[in-house]
This record gives sequence, structure tokens and C-alpha cells, in this order.
Amino acid sequence: MKVAIMGYGTIGSGVAKVLDTNKDIITERLGESLDIKYILDLRDFPGDPHESCFVKDYKAIADDKEVKIVVETMGGVEPAFTFVKAMLEAGKSVTTSNKALVADKGAELMQIAEAHNTNFVFEAAVGGGIPIIRTITACLTGDVIEEIDAICNGTTNYMLTNMEQFGSDYDEILAEAQSLGYAEKDPTADVEGHDSCRKIAILTSLISGKNVDFNDIPTEGISKISSTDFKYAKAMGYSIKLIARSIKCGNTYSCRVAPYLVKPEQMLYHVSGVMNAVAVRGNMLGESMYYGAGAGALPTASAVVGDMVFLARNTERAVKIGWADEKLTLANPSEQKFKYFVRTSALQSNIENEFGEVEYSTLDLDEEVGFITEEMTESEFNERKTALGGIISVIRFF
Amino acid sequence: MKVAIMGYGTIGSGVAKVLDTNKDIITERLGESLDIKYILDLRDFPGDPHESCFVKDYKAIADDKEVKIVVETMGGVEPAFTFVKAMLEAGKSVTTSNKALVADKGAELMQIAEAHNTNFVFEAAVGGGIPIIRTITACLTGDVIEEIDAICNGTTNYMLTNMEQFGSDYDEILAEAQSLGYAEKDPTADVEGHDSCRKIAILTSLISGKNVDFNDIPTEGISKISSTDFKYAKAMGYSIKLIARSIKCGNTYSCRVAPYLVKPEQMLYHVSGVMNAVAVRGNMLGESMYYGAGAGALPTASAVVGDMVFLARNTERAVKIGWADEKLTLANPSEQKFKYFVRTSALQSNIENEFGEVEYSTLDLDEEVGFITEEMTESEFNERKTALGGIISVIRFF
Repeated sequence: MKVAIMGYGTIGSGVAKVLDTNKDIITERLGESLDIKYILDLRDFPGDPHESCFVKDYKAIADDKEVKIVVETMGGVEPAFTFVKAMLEAGKSVTTSNKALVADKGAELMQIAEAHNTNFVFEAAVGGGIPIIRTITACLTGDVIEEIDAICNGTTNYMLTNMEQFGSDYDEILAEAQSLGYAEKDPTADVEGHDSCRKIAILTSLISGKNVDFNDIPTEGISKISSTDFKYAKAMGYSIKLIARSIKCGNTYSCRVAPYLVKPEQMLYHVSGVMNAVAVRGNMLGESMYYGAGAGALPTASAVVGDMVFLARNTERAVKIGWADEKLTLANPSEQKFKYFVRTSALQSNIENEFGEVEYSTLDLDEEVGFITEEMTESEFNERKTALGGIISVIRFF
Repeated sequence: MKVAIMGYGTIGSGVAKVLDTNKDIITERLGESLDIKYILDLRDFPGDPHESCFVKDYKAIADDKEVKIVVETMGGVEPAFTFVKAMLEAGKSVTTSNKALVADKGAELMQIAEAHNTNFVFEAAVGGGIPIIRTITACLTGDVIEEIDAICNGTTNYMLTNMEQFGSDYDEILAEAQSLGYAEKDPTADVEGHDSCRKIAILTSLISGKNVDFNDIPTEGISKISSTDFKYAKAMGYSIKLIARSIKCGNTYSCRVAPYLVKPEQMLYHVSGVMNAVAVRGNMLGESMYYGAGAGALPTASAVVGDMVFLARNTERAVKIGWADEKLTLANPSEQKFKYFVRTSALQSNIENEFGEVEYSTLDLDEEVGFITEEMTESEFNERKTALGGIISVIRFF
């Protein structure tokens, strides 16, 4: 079976490597081989083992009836969307690792695929080395999914783990992560939680069957987390993790991306470094968790190739996974309830005036105090917080 | 779509409950409902909501062309095998939670299914609430699977967790587990590792594509583990877990079921109580782990219903998962290499005579000493162990 790869960067060349390295076992599993016929890239790759496959115009691929499966690993919404749409309209199956494309155009591309009796899949778009998409769409299909809690960004989890382990501050760890290639030059999408936000939007679309707009999800990153926050967390026996959450709330879901205080009894506490994990609770299944590499060329490429095997087994047959174009109105995030850890320069008498009797945390720092609130709604907390003033930092308990 | 359940015990009635409770969402996902037409059981269930569905002869189901999907939750090899075979030969799809049936007859039943253009699936047979079968057969299909390490028996993990937590001895914890219904009256299949052995045989068949005879896998249970073993483990910073392992070794796999010493840096250390987990390493994917309830009526029934949705999406279409009837000759287990923890009444001079300079463990017990060997093969260890004598217990390091 002839296949094509659009975008020969880290992931795209990883896909070629997985297909080459594991050619025998993939052929055995499928009963036929997956042969790369085209690679679309504007750059030249002289000496590449697939040198003869390179093309610069996507129409060469779209027009070749022999190509059944197309991989999109270009990144970004355009021109990826135009190219993928053309491939689906030409009756080809497509798999992508591009979470921006899926979060923005997923429902639309899935409908185009269905209309042309073919498939658009995207296992690699959420949690590279964690097969969470197929787990949700093809395994946990007997359950109402009540909650998803995901550590789904390798960069930030690596940074938080290192801040915890070495007591370093945010800027120091960011510079180190950038020098090691774990963080990008412009790290905004990772450290401000935008990447995690898109991923939980995709997962929530899949469990609800409707379309979630990632812009509706309140999102905080890790750029305000300091080494002092970690000292408090450690004193309380907790760690801090960036978690993307979606919790069933009546007929919809309540979503948030934020740093949370997590304790050792919770499995997500133990997810360290560049590893990621997605915890899923079903109404019949109970608790489950899926753990693996969150990023990296080969784990992500492995997910793409897993998708290619799926597509090869389902050519000319649209497999429904239920993601309608209808928009899901998320629950009001200001009604979410949490316990909060607060650092403030306010006086103890003022704290107790606003929050009643609270539990204090034990670091002996000048000019600030840490305390833990009762559980209350975001809106109630925000009112009291504003009234108190002198806030240094706030972290929610998971 | 009409379905039937064979065996209305804990799991079978759980399947009915999942279908009833989640009827709306299952219908939405499938585009049609799954309606129970028959329940096969020799017992009577007066007042059951599905009372009108009960039959006592499996042929009533096999002969009804309207029934497309049959659930087998009877347990045991016979008559389950005869009944399942008849259903497949009648062109119906079958899902089972019966690991004894799958370990013994899996390859044969899959071939019968393929010959009749239908499917035999068994997600619930390994790790009830963990979708490990479909993960291996439909997600990690681009990888050579290099290693599987599974805590895949809820009873023994519950017992070991409690022995560790409360310092209790084996007999005490077994009696408690039996009184709580977590262990059966005859607990042999669980505590001696036979259940875990069948599960790792099934998983190894799926990753190798050949048929593994569970009788070929060296299997030790937990019945020799004592509270003193846990005291040593704790002093060394380890826990003890019953792990079913399969490691790629040339063109085959090397398998073993045994208690292992596990340290906190390893994710399996954190799998406690009745929860189970399967760690999978792929040559491209790297490390991954799948965590969930190992048993229990609803988690297991959830897996069966997930299979039913899969079968409903694939009627009259055999989905290959590659488990040939050809036997896989496993690697010689006596060539496996481990570090061993040994408790012995032998003299220190004799220990050093047989094992050289070893690391001693620190409990101050009369008449025994604990030590840690270098890594060596099973056969070499067994020779030296026999020469040393006075062995009280041996546990391998994971």
C-alpha cells in the first residue's frame, strides 16, 4: 500500500524511520507493506534514503490514486488544513500529529472524511506515546466518561519536576530546558498552558460527542510558579503538576487547565519529567490511567504509524468516532469548587476575617504567610481574595 | 441489534447492568441500540428485569439469526468452548471475559471466527478495567514490543499491599481477603500465580503473533511471602509485587511469573490494592503503562460492553489481530538474569565463599541474614544457592 508524508521535520522523518525500522513486523501484521511513495517538503534533503520520493506540490499526492494513506506532520492550521482537506476529498485516509489543526478543524475534517467514505485520525495529536484517542473512541465505549485529568505537556512537566528536584527557579529551569531542546525558543504555547488547553478540548470533544472551543477553557500555565511555591508544597507533602481537567457536570463538562497541588496517593503525583499521563474515570469502569512519553520524535511517530495500520485496515470504510460539529457549551468555570493554597502578605487577623479559621502552612518566611482554604467556588474565592489583598500566589488543590 | 449473554453470574449480570445504565450513550455512539434477547443460565432469576430473556439451551441462541453478538461470561473451558464455537460457526460475533478459555483455545477460536467472517474478542480476559488487548492489537501496531511487565491479579495485589501496610502475615491476610470476597474459597489460581500466568501467556501470544502455552511459563505465587520479607524490603526501600513478565529475547520471548522487589522510581511500585497495571515497552514508543481496576463486576463488564460496541461496528467483517496457531517456543528461563535477595541461616563465610562479596541487608534478626547477589543467570544462582544451603527465602529484583 502506497503512503505519503507531508512535512519532513522531526515527526515526519520519525515516521519514515519507524516504517523503515519495523517494516517486517508491520507487513506481517497487515498482510501487506506500507511503502512511502511521496514526501512533501519545500526543503531539499540530499542523501536522504527516501530522496527520490520528495515533491514540493501537494497536488502530486492528491492526484495519485495509488496513494491510500497520507500523514500530515507539518504543524499549524494552514496550509495543513487545505492539504488535508484535498487528500480527504480525493478519498485518501489521513492521520495527523498536529494538535492545532485537530483542535481548530477536527470536527470539520471528520465530516469531510465521512462524506468521502474515508477516515481522519489523530492519535499522535494528544500525548504522543499514549494511545488515549483510540482508548476513548474504541475501548471505553460502554462508559459515560465522568472525568479526565491529564498531564499532557512534556515541556512543563519536565520543568516542574526539575524545579521540585533541584529547588531551582522558573527562569533558570526554562533556560536549561531551552538549551536541551525540551522547550522552544518561544515557549509560550507550552508554559502558558495553551498546548494542554487544546489537548483537553480535543479529549472533551471526543467524550461528549460535541465540539469544544478551546477558547472557552480557562487556562493558566506554570510561569508564575516559583521555587518558594515548591518549598511550601514539599512542606505539605505535595507536588505541583500542570493538569488539564474535564469533569462531567450535568449534560456538559467543566474544564480548566492550571497548576494543581497533588499528593502521593494520587497516581498523577508519580508522573515525572517528560512523561505524561491521562487519568480517565468512567461510570462503570472506575479509575484508569494511561502513561507514556508525552512528546519526542519516535513515540509520536509510533502513534502516527499505529494510525496508519488502523487506516490500512479500514480503507474505503468510514469508522465513526462521534465528534459532531454542534458546539458544546461548557459549564460555568466560576462555579467550580476547590480548596486553595494562598500565599499573602496580609495580616493573620485579616485572613481570618475573610476566610474564617484556616489551616496555616509552616515555612518561616518574613513578610508572608501561607494558608489553606475550605472548599469553595471560584467566584466566592475570588471575591474573598480581592477583599484580602496582598496575594503573592494561589494554587488549587487537585 | 440483538445480543445474548451466556452465564448470568457476577460478570454476566454486570454486563446487563452496564447495557441498561448506559443505554442512551451506547445507542448514540453506535447509531442503534444493543438489546438483550437471550440470557443463558441453568439457574432461575425470578423478578430479574430481564426475566423474559432466560433460556437453558444454547441452541436457542445459536439458531436465532437475529442475534448478532454473544457474550460469554460462564468461565471455565467447557462447556464455554462448545457454546462459543457454535455461536461463531453460526456467524455470530463473540466477546468473552473468560481467561481460561482464551489461554487454552484463543488461537483456535480466532481461526474459527475468521473462517466464518466474524470476530472473537476478549478485552475483559486480561485486566478487567484496563483496555490492554485493544491497545496491543490496534494501537501499538507500529512497534516491536520489547517487554511487558504486568501486575494483573487483583487478589494478590490487594493481599501484598495489605501485608506491606499492616505488617500482617500471609495466612491472616488471606483469611481477611476471603471474608471480604476479594479471594476465593480455593485461592490457588490467584495466590499461586496461575491466573497471572494465563494472562501473560495471552499477552505474549498477541505481541509475538504465535501461540504461547501457559504451561511453559515458570510460575511462582505469593504464598511463600512473609511479613519478614516485607520488613527486609522496607529496610531496602522496596516493595514486593507479583509481576508477570515477558521480555523479547532474539526471535522469541522470555517469560516468568514471580514476586519481585520493586523500587519507588518504578511506576509499578505505586500500583496498590485491587488496582492492576500493565507496563509495555516498544522499540519506538519507549515506556508506557496502562492502569485500572484488575477485577470487579462493573469494570470487567465495562470491558465486555466496549467489546460489544467494537463487534457491532464490525459485523460480517473479520478483523485480523494476528494470533497464529503456530506454537511459540519460549526462551530458556534458566538463562534469565537477575539480582537476587536471599535470606539464609548460612554463615557469612559460606555466603562469601559461594557468592563472593555481597551487600548485606540490615534487619537484626537471630539465626538469619539477608544479602543481595550480583546479577547472574537462574541456573548459576540455583547452583550456588544449593551449595550454600540454609535458604529461608529468595526474591528477585525487578
